[in-house]
Amino acid sequence: MANTQILLKSRPTGWVTPDNFERTDADIPAPAEGQILLKTLYLSVDPYMRGRMNDVKSYVPPFQIGAPLQGGIVAKVEASNNGKFAEGTYVSGMGDWADYMVTDGSGFTPVDPDLAPLSYNLGILGMPGMTAYVGLKGVGELKDGENVFVSAASGAVGQVVGQIAKNMNCHVAGSAGSDDKVAFLKDELGFDEAINYKTTPNLFKAVREANPNGVDVYFENVGGPILEATINVLNFNARVALCGFITDYNATLEEMAPGPRNLVVLVGRSVKMQGFIVFNYPDLCKEWVGIGAQWLKEGKLKYRESVAEGLGNAPQAFIDMLKGKNFGKQIVHVSDA
Amino acid sequence: MANTQILLKSRPTGWVTPDNFERTDADIPAPAEGQILLKTLYLSVDPYMRGRMNDVKSYVPPFQIGAPLQGGIVAKVEASNNGKFAEGTYVSGMGDWADYMVTDGSGFTPVDPDLAPLSYNLGILGMPGMTAYVGLKGVGELKDGENVFVSAASGAVGQVVGQIAKNMNCHVAGSAGSDDKVAFLKDELGFDEAINYKTTPNLFKAVREANPNGVDVYFENVGGPILEATINVLNFNARVALCGFITDYNATLEEMAPGPRNLVVLVGRSVKMQGFIVFNYPDLCKEWVGIGAQWLKEGKLKYRESVAEGLGNAPQAFIDMLKGKNFGKQIVHVSDA
Repeated sequence: MANTQILLKSRPTGWVTPDNFERTDADIPAPAEGQILLKTLYLSVDPYMRGRMNDVKSYVPPFQIGAPLQGGIVAKVEASNNGKFAEGTYVSGMGDWADYMVTDGSGFTPVDPDLAPLSYNLGILGMPGMTAYVGLKGVGELKDGENVFVSAASGAVGQVVGQIAKNMNCHVAGSAGSDDKVAFLKDELGFDEAINYKTTPNLFKAVREANPNGVDVYFENVGGPILEATINVLNFNARVALCGFITDYNATLEEMAPGPRNLVVLVGRSVKMQGFIVFNYPDLCKEWVGIGAQWLKEGKLKYRESVAEGLGNAPQAFIDMLKGKNFGKQIVHVSDA
Repeated sequence: MANTQILLKSRPTGWVTPDNFERTDADIPAPAEGQILLKTLYLSVDPYMRGRMNDVKSYVPPFQIGAPLQGGIVAKVEASNNGKFAEGTYVSGMGDWADYMVTDGSGFTPVDPDLAPLSYNLGILGMPGMTAYVGLKGVGELKDGENVFVSAASGAVGQVVGQIAKNMNCHVAGSAGSDDKVAFLKDELGFDEAINYKTTPNLFKAVREANPNGVDVYFENVGGPILEATINVLNFNARVALCGFITDYNATLEEMAPGPRNLVVLVGRSVKMQGFIVFNYPDLCKEWVGIGAQWLKEGKLKYRESVAEGLGNAPQAFIDMLKGKNFGKQIVHVSDA
């Protein structure tokens, strides 16, 4: 049996293409003393990974040319020379885009297969869910009954943002890029309002009407025109949690959309706009796993995934996700347990 | 004797012009029971007043057409029917652009003529000084030895920002709009670096070179291109205190400069950008008056004013200040004590 790996072949300029990836087959590695062998079950493709493809300073080091890409994985402990991890148990953490990998286990945590489907640990109970919770509570300082707006609302993070806010009795509105997604937000997830930013003739008007009481917390995944439109309807002392700017991830500085012309609004309305990195809030991350699992059990959370089949399709799943073609949290099913 | 007043005649669209003001002579009012008669000694012209000339929702109500403009004043209590204010003492607060006014005294606080020159209560010890302190400490969470950059650095707020930061052993750089101002910042106020944003051939390069260790706290008075250039050199966990966007105060939305294209940087570097209103930080304001007075006495603060002579020149002083023609804090001397 071979260990298939997906390597970074070249750094993209602009949009990521299949040429930026390379598939190789290696031998299955053997775990040394203190190491474990992991068999990948699911891997996660997430927007932040686009940044790691560039050779620039950021909060995580860039991917290396010729090395496997890395991201969130759920894996089974196939063999163990490390007393902390028993064979046959499940873990999640940052791992290689590969069928197998060895590690000393640092950064990996056990996951309970009875708590929720294993893949949920890459989404609603994993980094995207934690990001939603940290952005709303830690950065957004959300209080019960406030008014929340979220962009990319049907995505991995956005759908959790909206449901947390609904469970806190907030007015919740979101934007998404297709009528199907808009219907999902309103009919399935209970959003009060949702807009299709691609087809609305007047984004300013649509954002205003979707947020009749203004916006206390804006959870930003997108950037560009929707940010400008939302700034106009921010309330006094509003908070903007800057989670992502997916519109700009594939652009050079020259190609990047002009920023919002109305940042002056932030002064008069005492607005806080804050970028954040989920792993700087470990206590809230842990808190979310408990709350999220409980809410799932009680039926207070729904969750939609988009599953690509096979490691070889990971590059295309990643490319499609960056273009917004996924519907729900995009993951890749690599193998069965 | 007449009581000259400067009224708002019309709301400006774009730049303020002398036609927006009207001068009238009324009788000197008599204070009723509980009221005091104030004789204006100095009045303050400040950027935020431009916002009050528009008929829009903000943190202070708009000026009314046909009523006197209002702003910070220092005044002498000329007559008193209010036991809290003794005749012959001095007060500061928000007052009319007029030789005289009556008030019940709410919002006015006594000032000590021995602490500092009376006009300083409109500047370094008044709202602009408090704004500098609140922006650095309350919003910017400035720590000793960090790296600070401030735009409009020779203005009423900027010159105090730089000196507070220098007194906290920070690396301090600033931008200003003339070589005279740049020389003042470096030679008089002890800034480590200063740039003339109007003449530098490459603003990005100039900002980078003026901040060799990056920027931990950016104090923003200006907006536009300097904000974009500064975002590029923000450090991880940097804070941007949004005090003003003077470039945009006289523009319609269509005329406003495009915002920074690089807001995405705020995400990866966990930057906080926050607008603020000084009066929401009353404890820090009070704290500053004590610290500022002490530092003035010890020679640890310098202060430059630009004084226009006579109430009739207040409109032109205001217009010139909005265009950056003033050098130091712009005030108007109305009468002697």
